[in-house]
Amino acid sequence: MRLIILTIIITTFILPVIAQVNNSYNLMPAPSSIVRNGERFNITDNFRVSITGTPDQRLYAEASRFVRRLGEKTGFFLDKQGYVKPSDSSAKSPLLLRVKRPGKLMLHENESYILEINSRQAIVTAETDLGAIHALETLMQLISTDDKGYYFPGLLIIDSPRFSWRGILLDVALHFMPIDVIKRTLDGMAAVKMNVLHLHLCNDQGFRVESKVFPQLQQQSSDGVYFTQENIKELIRYAGQRGIRIVPEFVVPAHTTAILCSFPEFASVKKTYTLQRYFGVFDPVLDPTNEKVYPFLDKLFTEMAGLFPDNYFHIGGDENTGKDWESTPHIKAFMKEKGMKTFMELQTYFNKRILPIVKKNGKTMMGWDEILQPGVPKDIVIQSWRGKEAFYESIKKGYQAILSNGYYIDLIQPTDFHYLNDPLPKNIHLSQEEEKRVLGGEATMWSEHVTPETVDSRIWPRTAAIAERLWSPQEVNDVNDMYRRLDFVSLYLDGLGLKHISYKLPLLRKLSNSYDIKTLQTLVDVIEPLKIYERNQGDTMYTVFSPYTKLADVATPDQDLPRRFSVLIDSFLKNRSAELEKRVREQMTLWKENHTAFLQLIRNSPVLEEGKLLSEHLSKVATAGLEALAFIRQHDTADYEWVSQHMAITERAKEQGGRCELQVIKPIQKLIKAAGGNEDPHVETQATQVFVLHSAKTATQQ
Amino acid sequence: MRLIILTIIITTFILPVIAQVNNSYNLMPAPSSIVRNGERFNITDNFRVSITGTPDQRLYAEASRFVRRLGEKTGFFLDKQGYVKPSDSSAKSPLLLRVKRPGKLMLHENESYILEINSRQAIVTAETDLGAIHALETLMQLISTDDKGYYFPGLLIIDSPRFSWRGILLDVALHFMPIDVIKRTLDGMAAVKMNVLHLHLCNDQGFRVESKVFPQLQQQSSDGVYFTQENIKELIRYAGQRGIRIVPEFVVPAHTTAILCSFPEFASVKKTYTLQRYFGVFDPVLDPTNEKVYPFLDKLFTEMAGLFPDNYFHIGGDENTGKDWESTPHIKAFMKEKGMKTFMELQTYFNKRILPIVKKNGKTMMGWDEILQPGVPKDIVIQSWRGKEAFYESIKKGYQAILSNGYYIDLIQPTDFHYLNDPLPKNIHLSQEEEKRVLGGEATMWSEHVTPETVDSRIWPRTAAIAERLWSPQEVNDVNDMYRRLDFVSLYLDGLGLKHISYKLPLLRKLSNSYDIKTLQTLVDVIEPLKIYERNQGDTMYTVFSPYTKLADVATPDQDLPRRFSVLIDSFLKNRSAELEKRVREQMTLWKENHTAFLQLIRNSPVLEEGKLLSEHLSKVATAGLEALAFIRQHDTADYEWVSQHMAITERAKEQGGRCELQVIKPIQKLIKAAGGNEDPHVETQATQVFVLHSAKTATQQ
Repeated sequence: MRLIILTIIITTFILPVIAQVNNSYNLMPAPSSIVRNGERFNITDNFRVSITGTPDQRLYAEASRFVRRLGEKTGFFLDKQGYVKPSDSSAKSPLLLRVKRPGKLMLHENESYILEINSRQAIVTAETDLGAIHALETLMQLISTDDKGYYFPGLLIIDSPRFSWRGILLDVALHFMPIDVIKRTLDGMAAVKMNVLHLHLCNDQGFRVESKVFPQLQQQSSDGVYFTQENIKELIRYAGQRGIRIVPEFVVPAHTTAILCSFPEFASVKKTYTLQRYFGVFDPVLDPTNEKVYPFLDKLFTEMAGLFPDNYFHIGGDENTGKDWESTPHIKAFMKEKGMKTFMELQTYFNKRILPIVKKNGKTMMGWDEILQPGVPKDIVIQSWRGKEAFYESIKKGYQAILSNGYYIDLIQPTDFHYLNDPLPKNIHLSQEEEKRVLGGEATMWSEHVTPETVDSRIWPRTAAIAERLWSPQEVNDVNDMYRRLDFVSLYLDGLGLKHISYKLPLLRKLSNSYDIKTLQTLVDVIEPLKIYERNQGDTMYTVFSPYTKLADVATPDQDLPRRFSVLIDSFLKNRSAELEKRVREQMTLWKENHTAFLQLIRNSPVLEEGKLLSEHLSKVATAGLEALAFIRQHDTADYEWVSQHMAITERAKEQGGRCELQVIKPIQKLIKAAGGNEDPHVETQATQVFVLHSAKTATQQ
Repeated sequence: MRLIILTIIITTFILPVIAQVNNSYNLMPAPSSIVRNGERFNITDNFRVSITGTPDQRLYAEASRFVRRLGEKTGFFLDKQGYVKPSDSSAKSPLLLRVKRPGKLMLHENESYILEINSRQAIVTAETDLGAIHALETLMQLISTDDKGYYFPGLLIIDSPRFSWRGILLDVALHFMPIDVIKRTLDGMAAVKMNVLHLHLCNDQGFRVESKVFPQLQQQSSDGVYFTQENIKELIRYAGQRGIRIVPEFVVPAHTTAILCSFPEFASVKKTYTLQRYFGVFDPVLDPTNEKVYPFLDKLFTEMAGLFPDNYFHIGGDENTGKDWESTPHIKAFMKEKGMKTFMELQTYFNKRILPIVKKNGKTMMGWDEILQPGVPKDIVIQSWRGKEAFYESIKKGYQAILSNGYYIDLIQPTDFHYLNDPLPKNIHLSQEEEKRVLGGEATMWSEHVTPETVDSRIWPRTAAIAERLWSPQEVNDVNDMYRRLDFVSLYLDGLGLKHISYKLPLLRKLSNSYDIKTLQTLVDVIEPLKIYERNQGDTMYTVFSPYTKLADVATPDQDLPRRFSVLIDSFLKNRSAELEKRVREQMTLWKENHTAFLQLIRNSPVLEEGKLLSEHLSKVATAGLEALAFIRQHDTADYEWVSQHMAITERAKEQGGRCELQVIKPIQKLIKAAGGNEDPHVETQATQVFVLHSAKTATQQ
């Protein structure tokens, strides 16, 4: 652990500074409106909370949690107010929450709030306690310090969300995520004002909820890891406490291998099914021509609809290959008889049979893009993952929809890519009615390659930027300011118990087989896992049993250091100051020299063999960069051949290693070109991986 | 830049080196016998496990977990064997487990194993699967590396435990500990071959198990944090899977404020009771003269005895002040009528009424020292916390007993203190029969000042040394070698998911209000929380609502750096080499200069104000040490006055700050004395705290 300090010192220039200057705050999501009043409210150990009006009971617990968090942040012993009670309703209390009525956990509920802070008091005014809960998070983010101590800055905030559906899909089917992961995810969501947790509860790899009607499902189709109904109730309570709805997804008719393990009689192709250990798109699918399938789904969905109180019920509907339908005579005959030309028409038939089951349970049916087919009633909600066109098409056709395309956080894309993905961008022209049907969006955390230990690092902090996109006014879209505040919110989430930062060191220690992690960390700081669907090439490399404790797991998306290094190079190339030159040189020298130590490290920890190539490339690229820097320092110009040769070295360094790729090649290429007078040389490259960040390929798989 | 080099060098000598030299292993607890055979078994991705014989089903799951852990450690994709099954029984498998019969989760069960590793195979032979599970942990700890990759060293280990009861008491009453904490504690226990988790389930601050018979207990007496019966069953399953018994404790007749909140009619003093928010010894106590108390306890204990399958049932019995008995007329009258002279006689009466309730549920009753009173039957087990005399007295009187005195890990004492605390030391002369009644011991993790975030840092790694004391032969008692292996086992536990190391950085970031923690860490590395019962002076400073996110929480017991610094000073004073002098100087320079940065840090994070005094003292002490070093370097001798003055500075530095104290004073005092030619000067001191490590005061409170 002490070696971290070392790394921090060496990499000082890349350290974010959490500034609390007078002119800016670190709020994320940014509120609709802030007006400063120049006052300040000093936080002391006399801090208390009062609540007036008629909130839901949850607000007392949330206010008590706020007092506890404030105590932990400031060190004050706020023991006097162990729990905030209805009797705590003094209008002069340091913090006063005024709430009109209990908030309902449903779409389009009022979540707005007004927060006024003056030198005597902080006052929150909200229609519902849901708004007041959001205000408490704003207040936590506003805690400021100077040599006089802790204070809230004086201001007036008027705030409400842009979209009503601001969610995370958490996949607990491909890799199961236990209760503590879900709970801390809910804490993180509440911190950035998200309000829907969409649980993807079953897939080919497992069925993850206890069914009392069909206990085979958890007994034979879960490997023993699933939520009991008591667990689910506990999660729903916990989420509701934070003002968050839980929407369940039970995917049909495809992605049902787990169900078919218990009920092979409902399969299109009759055989024995075993749980799928690989990830991808598979052929097993329910038989829509089997009349016994519908009573089964009726019973199962009715049980689950009773367990999950939310108004929405997600039936998946995606990625049916159709093969097991088209290859099965009685199903082909059925299609022919009904005049169906494609298997998607058969799926629409299936969906129409499911819809009444969902409806009679008082629920609105949701599904992925694929369920939108001619003839499907308009009272369903589409979740759009395949592309923007499909999304606006569904809106224009009269469907309500939420956007997930562009929010696939499992694909390791950079934060700004997600941040600028607006569900209602200015260049899309929709009528007011149509705009209303854009409910919001969901970040999707598919769990092929994550475990309970690593999942936070894929969700946070990037999802905070998605939360801002869905909450804040459209005009809040300055990428630099987003990254500035993201540093703050990442630390804020870390302090709340999220593991996106803290998971890393134990894994670095495990991979280094030592307390001394500096050599490995130097490499890991500049690599990212392969993006989009490159990591699991051909869906054949990983299974549910694979170790997720390797380089690609400890490397995180959208690394800080490469981004800051890129800014540093740009600054240096602009003003060529000695000070910046020194920083660039020291950083590249560290990279150059790290490889020798890395080779030593492999001996102590052979698992790191897979990082050898990356480390070697980093060293070579840094060496090239240092040579380029020497040209620039000496006001010399490298010749065309030198530039070509060294550009080729950097191109070769794009090769993957341990399912990761180097992230500092581009700025070093700028240096090399600058050394050559910025001529663009012809480059021969052996690299096979192309380094594309912002143009997501069309996703071919969830 | 100077600082960087400094830190590199400074951190070098304090970093433990995980050595894997041929002559020693890093096993903890050390096995009874190891014989090397010079061979090696290379671990490859063809690794598989087979099981023959008739183990309990748990062994298949544990063997599967072993395969997964081995994959995570080595990076091998051992996907082929997702789960080890009874059909995997090839005698030629790389790892073969041969087990005679299912192990029973009970005292004195056979836990022995033989492990033989040659170049072709690792073979475990065990009477029961419990022994085989211990062997798997031994194997995990044996994984070795060199430039040829991962391997197990060839050897023959014959191993069995010295004591059958090797436990941790985890207090979930004073501060509740959720399921994930319990589970990872069980993982840690299994890793060091402990086999009893004693759950302290209720106290004045809360009742932590759902009762279906008396639901008031969790509804009114838990603040809403408790285990459901389903939770308990899950924990018992999880523990059983690791070969660990769970022993429940329901403390009566004192420490029952939580029960009396729900059932004031059973109190000795009639009044309304509310949950106790402070910690300590309080007067509320059940009324032993109320005949309705016994049917109540009968129903409650019968329900709980059914929930917890273990043969032992702990009824507490400690720390009754007797005040509420002696001040209540009808109770005094009752005592007089029965001829009882002291309230302890009344407690014995009470215990004798409880014993049949416990017995008829098929359980052996356990209690703390205090239940051992004249006339108490011999078929109970005493848990000894007050002192060794009471322990051997109970043994000699014919009782079975387990030792906890000396294993109070909540008291922040150093590892070697606990390590050398032998339940059967050589100087105690007991007959063979008497020795047999010494069942073992339990480390006690009372939770006054710990939370789910910090608790691991109080349990680990010190408890691994207690585990060794209870498992390994008496002769294994080399403190230096213990500390060498403790470094390894601490990293091993870290890799297993325990939080004793990784909890620290998020807390340091929170306390620093920044990603940059180096200034704070420099201070925290040399302080420890106040020991024994000093932290919570007079039991009046802390409540259950206090923030446990401060200096005393991020500081850990038995810090590495001070111990290593002390060794460094001793080495330097012995040989006075220039190289060691440089190390000493650089370390003390860092401490001296840190204070300026610390003062800056307080501005950004006022909560650190409480560390100012410590930081200032550290700086002063280091300055004194540097001056002493200069004398020594120049072969000069400081005069008596200089030595007196500077010793006084170091004495004043013993003052507590933020409920912590500096740990590097002693070695620096050695330097100062050496500078003065080792004369012991007269010292005037203003310090009030006395720095006593190894002489534990008699504990006055659990």
